[in-house]
Amino acid sequence: MKQSRMLIPTQKQDPTGAEALSHRMLLRAGYIQQVSAGTYAYLPLAYRVLEKIERIIKRAMDASGACEMLVPEIIPAQFWQDSGRYDTYGDELFKLKNRHDTEFILGPTHEETFTELIKSSVKSYKKLPLNLYQIQSKFRDEDRSRYGLLRSREFLMLDSYSFSANEADLDQIYKEMRGAFESIFNQIGLSYRGIIGDSGSMGGSDSMEFSAPAAVGEDTIVYSNDSEYAANLEMATNMFVPQKSHAEAQPLELVDTPDVKTIDQVTEFFAIHPDQVVKSLLYLADEQPVIVLTRGDQVANEAKLKHVLGADTLELATPAQVAELLDVQPGAVGPFDLPAETKVIADEYVQPMVNAIVGANQTGKHYQGFNPTRDLPDLEYADVRTVKEGDISPDGSGELQFTKGIEIGHIFKLGTRYSKVLGADILDENGRQQPIIMGCYGIGVSRLLSAVAEQQADENGLVWPTAIAPFDVHVIPTNVKKEEQAELATQITTSLEEAGFEVLVDDRKERAGVKFADSDLIGVPIRVTIGKKADEGIVEVKIRKTGETVETKVDDLQNTIKILAKEI
Amino acid sequence: MKQSRMLIPTQKQDPTGAEALSHRMLLRAGYIQQVSAGTYAYLPLAYRVLEKIERIIKRAMDASGACEMLVPEIIPAQFWQDSGRYDTYGDELFKLKNRHDTEFILGPTHEETFTELIKSSVKSYKKLPLNLYQIQSKFRDEDRSRYGLLRSREFLMLDSYSFSANEADLDQIYKEMRGAFESIFNQIGLSYRGIIGDSGSMGGSDSMEFSAPAAVGEDTIVYSNDSEYAANLEMATNMFVPQKSHAEAQPLELVDTPDVKTIDQVTEFFAIHPDQVVKSLLYLADEQPVIVLTRGDQVANEAKLKHVLGADTLELATPAQVAELLDVQPGAVGPFDLPAETKVIADEYVQPMVNAIVGANQTGKHYQGFNPTRDLPDLEYADVRTVKEGDISPDGSGELQFTKGIEIGHIFKLGTRYSKVLGADILDENGRQQPIIMGCYGIGVSRLLSAVAEQQADENGLVWPTAIAPFDVHVIPTNVKKEEQAELATQITTSLEEAGFEVLVDDRKERAGVKFADSDLIGVPIRVTIGKKADEGIVEVKIRKTGETVETKVDDLQNTIKILAKEI
Repeated sequence: MKQSRMLIPTQKQDPTGAEALSHRMLLRAGYIQQVSAGTYAYLPLAYRVLEKIERIIKRAMDASGACEMLVPEIIPAQFWQDSGRYDTYGDELFKLKNRHDTEFILGPTHEETFTELIKSSVKSYKKLPLNLYQIQSKFRDEDRSRYGLLRSREFLMLDSYSFSANEADLDQIYKEMRGAFESIFNQIGLSYRGIIGDSGSMGGSDSMEFSAPAAVGEDTIVYSNDSEYAANLEMATNMFVPQKSHAEAQPLELVDTPDVKTIDQVTEFFAIHPDQVVKSLLYLADEQPVIVLTRGDQVANEAKLKHVLGADTLELATPAQVAELLDVQPGAVGPFDLPAETKVIADEYVQPMVNAIVGANQTGKHYQGFNPTRDLPDLEYADVRTVKEGDISPDGSGELQFTKGIEIGHIFKLGTRYSKVLGADILDENGRQQPIIMGCYGIGVSRLLSAVAEQQADENGLVWPTAIAPFDVHVIPTNVKKEEQAELATQITTSLEEAGFEVLVDDRKERAGVKFADSDLIGVPIRVTIGKKADEGIVEVKIRKTGETVETKVDDLQNTIKILAKEI
Repeated sequence: MKQSRMLIPTQKQDPTGAEALSHRMLLRAGYIQQVSAGTYAYLPLAYRVLEKIERIIKRAMDASGACEMLVPEIIPAQFWQDSGRYDTYGDELFKLKNRHDTEFILGPTHEETFTELIKSSVKSYKKLPLNLYQIQSKFRDEDRSRYGLLRSREFLMLDSYSFSANEADLDQIYKEMRGAFESIFNQIGLSYRGIIGDSGSMGGSDSMEFSAPAAVGEDTIVYSNDSEYAANLEMATNMFVPQKSHAEAQPLELVDTPDVKTIDQVTEFFAIHPDQVVKSLLYLADEQPVIVLTRGDQVANEAKLKHVLGADTLELATPAQVAELLDVQPGAVGPFDLPAETKVIADEYVQPMVNAIVGANQTGKHYQGFNPTRDLPDLEYADVRTVKEGDISPDGSGELQFTKGIEIGHIFKLGTRYSKVLGADILDENGRQQPIIMGCYGIGVSRLLSAVAEQQADENGLVWPTAIAPFDVHVIPTNVKKEEQAELATQITTSLEEAGFEVLVDDRKERAGVKFADSDLIGVPIRVTIGKKADEGIVEVKIRKTGETVETKVDDLQNTIKILAKEI
């Protein structure tokens, strides 16, 4: 492909307003162009990358038994009113009317549409299971779009919906989809983590998020440096390894601790480590008081607490609320002498503590010699701590590390959430009417471009993994006015194309410096430079990723490229 | 692919409300499903056909040097306000606002978007020509959607836009696009005609429409049965073949013709053929009187008249207007003794007439012995007739035939229509600012499904041309409960797939009759039936299009299919 026939508007300078590396480089390298705030045109280079990504996705989905189709992007508002999402989805929903005043939305996702289609065409368990997918533009009226393709108002997404008559089939498809998604991300050459989702961590494997570590990511991901374990910080846990103490239990003793409120003050006052202190905090869970105990070196995790308590809302009590409910100052809260309605919950790590310090629930006083199992035998324990970097992975393999991540995919067991409200029933094997059991599976296709760029671009431009690079080889005659260079460029391009390589040839009458800078921006894995030694039949091969260069005879070029391509 | 894993909701009966053959059969065969009035889901079978069509289109477009990309489907209303189309496009434009009250439209076409992109990224003739295309959902808020995919509110379209610095480059790309489109329609296996567009017939080749003959088509197409000539009825012309008469010219003589008004009455009165009569009609062109003369066996064409006269409006004068302007009854209008402001224009075929009858422009009188070149030497002639079936094609090859047609593609030289109003200029070779010269090229992708179905379906269902069939072979074990049949089906499917065929295997536990009916509906070109002779290793091969069947040994199956596939 001749570079002169493609629209590649490269820019020398960083565009204003683009913060993220991927956004800057996709703009500068002429891959994308903004059309309106939060919407972008995918120029020819980006489209080639998208097509390769889509091909990888389709092959993996088809291999898993899923079937591709396509539903309209405008959805009757009625579908979403029936499912209850029309009102709850919020301002991110694009709404419109047709000339006859019928209300529509622009689909951000299509659970309702697929459910309605299946509802009217599948009446028996015999026609199930089915897994149907599409790759298509989706719409979300973001309040603040940003980072280019990472948070845009119109984006390309794979969405797949499975329909089955029983849980076992859902489990099977869910497993297949997990495998397919992992295969897709691996083939693309993306570093990613499969993260246990919100509901997943609380009893099941109902949901899994795939996240690509990247500086601009919006989530904090916790992962093991020696296993597959990964979770969002809110959900992450570490292994509970009770340290056994051989110290003899001391008696529980009230100590005057005037002005000692924080953990730091406690450790200083008692000359101990924070892991010998029990921290007590008063929360209001659905407006009911709850005292939460954690080890002094650990932090309570409010997401976990909400789950454990089954609470919809959870807030730390204000000093005024502490005073009102417990009649003490916040620093003196403790699990003793509490009003009847006050619940106490302790993190697992509190249980094995021996001779700890703990608030006495009396202003200016702490207990020492606190032995939880002895002093509060009915205490309820749960995992309510926030993990820290360096904690042991819950599977016992490796230590936990933190990173920022971009959500690139999600698989989700929907169950009967949509089939029930929309009335998508089938007759089961016993002739009984049952709601269909569903799953949904999504990949942010256009977002993957940004995720790969975030992980692999450098300050000179984009660096594409071979599998999704817009071209395999970038052929650059440094001076096309020199006939031998132009001829050699044509000859090399033709022979490489005949050998199955996709070649971009820079046939422009630009200076060599401009061509090299553009080539670095564009980020094709291998560059072949035709320069001064062209008349000797020698060209230079450069690896974009490593910067490594070798000179090679034109006759050896294909072999050299094949060998180098394997190394990339 | 196992039929049980695909969503193919076939229907035994014609669905209500679907009139067109293609609409009925696409619904009945489980290819499409309505989501809302005028929007359809493309179910897995339809999607496979669409994908094959898209592949053919992309290959042809790429080969012509065009580059694929993708622009957002939501377009800032401002773009269309700037181009002037926001108000003129009418109610077919879907309009919406985002949460910040910015106005958008859903793109029915993207001239403005592409022009804006080029405007901001291309500043010099050196970066041109470019031809950029996309295949994408488009939206048109039809007043009355109908015929399924033929007139729907959301549809898939290829749209390509070319940008060049001079007319020569536009001409070249226009020619390439015409070639690419012809190649695409030929590959698909569609019967079509390239039709000279409105502006085209009037001095140039600025536009060409591609039309697929079909009963439900909305246009009347005129074509030669022996050449490439085709045009819409409004634009069609026939060859001007002046018949030479050797009769001696008679003197012009006024004849009393009481109550003789129509051509029929004239021919009866004078005992002559209509081609010996000159018909005179009074029109008002932009409110100016014009008398139009045609041969008595021909009909004036108002579209042509408007062009010839350069008029915006054209209406046949009412009897009252005739009386007022000419002071005669309508049947007596003639090109004599006219008020000064009355123009006369005659069709070419009037010129060679000898001794004709013509209205005298006096109530109750005609002239006989009318010899136009002698009696009205200053008469203006032009092609203002409507062609008839059987007329000679204007290129002299074959006779004209009429048919109804579906518009499937359009190529158009836009010139500077958009670049001027949107300010998309470049510096030309002489450093002068010039608006970019544009062309646009479109194919109705989803519409092609219907066009092919209209041309090739029968009352048993769809019949796909090999190039775009969802599968190559449909394997049908008549009874999957019989182990030898199920095994043979698997064996045949595997070996055909290994040989590169795409195979749909009907693994359902349905009766043979149901399977055959569904197979006819689905319309895969070749069916392999595994029946009673399975244990002898004999299967039946059937051609969907012809109904022809042959029995073959399983060992010979591939060869048989290859031979038959060539014949289809």
